Amino acid sequence: MTRYEELAQRLRRQIQSQVWLPGDKLPSLRESCKQSGLSLMTVLQAYQLLESQGWVVARPQSGYYVANSPSALPESGGALHLSEQVDINDAIFDILQAAKDPTIVPFGSAFPDASLFPQPRLARSLASAVRRMSASSAVANLPPGNEDLRRSIAQRYAQQGIAVAPDDIVITSGAMESLGLSLQAVTEPGDWVAIESPAFYGVLQAIERRQLKAVAIPTDVQTGIDLDALADALARYPIRACWLMSNFQNPLGATLPRARKQQLVAMLAARGIALIEDDVYSELYFGPARPPALRAFDRDGSTVLHCSSFSKCLAPGFRVGWVAAGPYAAKIQRLQLMSTLSASVPTQLALADYLHQSGFEPHLRRLRRQLELRQLAMYRGIQQAFPAGVSISRPEGGYFLWLTLGQGRDARTLYRRALAQGISIAPGHMFTTGDQFRDGVRLNSSFPWDARHQQAIETLGELVRGL
Amino acid sequence: MTRYEELAQRLRRQIQSQVWLPGDKLPSLRESCKQSGLSLMTVLQAYQLLESQGWVVARPQSGYYVANSPSALPESGGALHLSEQVDINDAIFDILQAAKDPTIVPFGSAFPDASLFPQPRLARSLASAVRRMSASSAVANLPPGNEDLRRSIAQRYAQQGIAVAPDDIVITSGAMESLGLSLQAVTEPGDWVAIESPAFYGVLQAIERRQLKAVAIPTDVQTGIDLDALADALARYPIRACWLMSNFQNPLGATLPRARKQQLVAMLAARGIALIEDDVYSELYFGPARPPALRAFDRDGSTVLHCSSFSKCLAPGFRVGWVAAGPYAAKIQRLQLMSTLSASVPTQLALADYLHQSGFEPHLRRLRRQLELRQLAMYRGIQQAFPAGVSISRPEGGYFLWLTLGQGRDARTLYRRALAQGISIAPGHMFTTGDQFRDGVRLNSSFPWDARHQQAIETLGELVRGL
Repeated sequence: MTRYEELAQRLRRQIQSQVWLPGDKLPSLRESCKQSGLSLMTVLQAYQLLESQGWVVARPQSGYYVANSPSALPESGGALHLSEQVDINDAIFDILQAAKDPTIVPFGSAFPDASLFPQPRLARSLASAVRRMSASSAVANLPPGNEDLRRSIAQRYAQQGIAVAPDDIVITSGAMESLGLSLQAVTEPGDWVAIESPAFYGVLQAIERRQLKAVAIPTDVQTGIDLDALADALARYPIRACWLMSNFQNPLGATLPRARKQQLVAMLAARGIALIEDDVYSELYFGPARPPALRAFDRDGSTVLHCSSFSKCLAPGFRVGWVAAGPYAAKIQRLQLMSTLSASVPTQLALADYLHQSGFEPHLRRLRRQLELRQLAMYRGIQQAFPAGVSISRPEGGYFLWLTLGQGRDARTLYRRALAQGISIAPGHMFTTGDQFRDGVRLNSSFPWDARHQQAIETLGELVRGL
Repeated sequence: MTRYEELAQRLRRQIQSQVWLPGDKLPSLRESCKQSGLSLMTVLQAYQLLESQGWVVARPQSGYYVANSPSALPESGGALHLSEQVDINDAIFDILQAAKDPTIVPFGSAFPDASLFPQPRLARSLASAVRRMSASSAVANLPPGNEDLRRSIAQRYAQQGIAVAPDDIVITSGAMESLGLSLQAVTEPGDWVAIESPAFYGVLQAIERRQLKAVAIPTDVQTGIDLDALADALARYPIRACWLMSNFQNPLGATLPRARKQQLVAMLAARGIALIEDDVYSELYFGPARPPALRAFDRDGSTVLHCSSFSKCLAPGFRVGWVAAGPYAAKIQRLQLMSTLSASVPTQLALADYLHQSGFEPHLRRLRRQLELRQLAMYRGIQQAFPAGVSISRPEGGYFLWLTLGQGRDARTLYRRALAQGISIAPGHMFTTGDQFRDGVRLNSSFPWDARHQQAIETLGELVRGL
C-alpha cells in the first residue's frame, strides 16, 4: 500500500467510526501535512482518492467535507454489546440505557420525568453562577464544597429541627457518590453490612465493589425493614454498618413508621453501628408533612450519615448531592479528594444561588401535587388493565409503584416481552442478589398520564395476562 | 428547662455552628411555630430571650436577625482536625486544604494558577449550554456522556494520528475518576500493579483502596520509568496492570523518550497487561510538538486505557475528564453508573460548545508560552536563592519543578518550617509509600513571577540553608 493509500484508509476508518460525521469539514491539507509528516502532494492524492470513492466531497475555496451518505456506516451502538462479560447485572445496564432511547416507554427508569423540573429558573441560576465565577472558584470549592450551599442545606436541616452544622456537610457528585464514600468511611473490606431486601441495586453493587458481606433484612412494602429480623441479625453477625432508606424506599416505596425509626436508631447507636441513610426521596411526600429522616432521631449525629441530593427533587443532571457526615466529614473529604476531587463547581454555585431565591418551596409543592396525581392515574390504570391476583403498592411519596404479579408469573419474562413492545420495566431480581422477587416489578409513575403511557399500561396488562 | 428556653438553646447552637450567619434572617415566628409545634407565645419568648442575650436583633416589620457580633463564635475550621485518624497521609490533605487559603503561597499545590484560563469564554459556553439544555438533557448525557463532546475528543485524537472512535470514550468527573474506574476495570483486589516511583499520590491511594499490591519501578527525573527494572518486575511478579504518566510526569516532570514509549507498550501488549495512562499534562508542552501518548503506540487500542481531562489545560472546576477505553468502555460505563452515575451535564455541554469554537488552540498556545516563561523565572529564582548541592529539574512541559535538596536535608522539616512562614511545598514523601525521596520537593511553577512569589522563593532558599 502506498503512503497516500494508507492515509486515505486511516481517514476512511475515522469516517466509519464516526469521528467525522456527514457534513463535517476534514482537517485542511496543510494541517494534514503537518500532522502526518507527509508531503502536500501525498495528502492531496489521499483526499482525491476518498473523493473518487464517494467518502468526501471537495468544496472550492473551503476544503474537503464528509459526504452526506458515505458508504457503509456501521450500525450505531453495536460496539457496546461486544464487550467482555462484566459482573453487573445486564438488566440494570440495559434499563439505564433504555432510558436514553426516546422510543421506549421508560417505566423501568429510576429517573423522574424531566418535564417536572424548573428548567428556566435553574438556567437563570446557572447563568448567574457563571457571572460570579472567578479564577479561584475551582480551588475555593474543593471539598467539603461550596460554603454558601452547605449553609443553605444546614438551614433546611434546622427547619426540620435537626442540628447539622455547615461543616458537618460534604458536597458530592450526587447522592450515589455520598453513599459510596460513606460506605468506604465506615467499613473495611470483609466487614458485614445489613441492608434491605429488596434493596436499591446501587447498594448491592457498592457492597460487592467494597468486598463486604451483606445480610439482607426482610423489608415490608408498607412498613419497611423488619426490626426483629434486624435485631436477630445484629446478634448473630458482627455487623459494622447498616445502609437503608426509611422514606419511600426504592423499590418498594415503604416508609418506616416514626416509632420504628426511633427504635432503629437507638438499636444501632447502642451497639456503635454506623447507619448510612439514603434519603433522596423524602422531599416527595404527598401527606401534610415531610416524614422525618432517621437522622432526626440521632441527637449527637454520631450514628447516622445522612445522604441526599437535588437530583430527584430539583436538578437531575447537575450531579450535586451531599452527606451530613458529622464526625466522618473529614474522612469522607479525604476519600473524595482521591476519587473525584470535587463536585462540579458551576452547578454547586448555581444551586447555592437557586436556594437563595424563594422558588424552591413553591416548586416542591407543585412537584408533590403532580407526582401524587400521576401516581393515582397510573395506579387506577393498572387496577383496570391488569388481571386479578396482581397486587399494587401505593406509597405516600416518591414515584415508584411496586407490583407483585402473583400466581408464579415471572417478571423477567414480562421484562423481555415488554421491551420487545417498546416498554421498559424494572423486574424484581434487579433488587436482590438472591433468588427472590421473581414476580416483583417496579414501575416509574412520574410520567404524565397521556395516551402513550395509558396504552403502555394496557399493553403491560395484556402481557401479564399472557404469562 | 422550659420549652422556650429549649428552643432558644437550639437556635443559639445553630448560630454558634454557623447555620445562621451574622445578618441572616431567622425563620419567622409563624414558621418557627409550625416547625416546632410550639405556641406563638413560646416561640416569641424564645426569640426575646435570644434578643436580650445579644444573639439576635429584632427589626420592626421584618423579623429577627442574627446579631452582627454574636458572642462566642467558635474558631472556624477547628472541627476538621478533631476527626479520627485516617489512612491518608495528612500532608496530602493539608496541602490540598492550604491551596484554599489565599494567605498561603501555594507552591505545594497541584492546581495550575487559576488566572491562566479563559474564564469569559468558558462563561459564554456555559451560558450557551444552559440555553440549549432541555428537560431530557440529564438522561441523554448519561454514560458514556455527551456525544458531541466525545466526537470532538475523538477528532483531537485523530489529529494526532490516533484511532479512537467516539464510542471508545467515556466522559467522567475529571481524570481522577477515569483513572480510578480504569483501575477497577482491569484489576481484582489482590492483583499486582506496576507503578512509578515516585508516583502521583492519587495512584498510591487508589491502589490502597482497591487492595492491590504495588511494585514501584524506579523512575528517572529525565527519562521516566526504568524499562529494565519494569521487565525484571514483570518476570518476577504476576503483574496485571501498569499505571503511569509518560509525559511531564507528576511529580518529576519526566517524559519518556519516543523509542522507549514504543518499547514499553510492546512489552506490556506482548504479555496482555493493561496500561492505564494518566496523560493530563501532555497539552502543556514547551517544544514544537505535543509528545505522543503511549496510546499512539497501541495500534488496536487493546492495551492502553488513555485517561485525560480538561482540568489542567482549560477548565479546572468543571470536573470533566475522559478515558479512551476501547474494549473496556462498556465495563467502565457500568462502574461509573454505580459510583457517580454521570459527569455533570451543564459542564459537559459547555465544553462541547467551547470545542466547536476556534479558541482552544490559541488558548493552548498562550498557556504553553506563559507556563514556559513562568517556569524559567522560577528556575532562575531558585538557582539564585538556594544553596549549592540542590539540584533542580527543568521539564519540557507542565508546571512542576522537582528539587533534590541533597546533603541529608529533610524535606519534611522544610515543609513544616515553610508552612509556618505561609508557604506550602510538596515534600517527596507524599509520592511514595516507602521511605525514599526524603530530600525531594515538588514546586508548582505556574504562578506569575511577582514580588510575592519571588520573596517566597527567597524565604525557601533561606530555610534550606538553615536545614
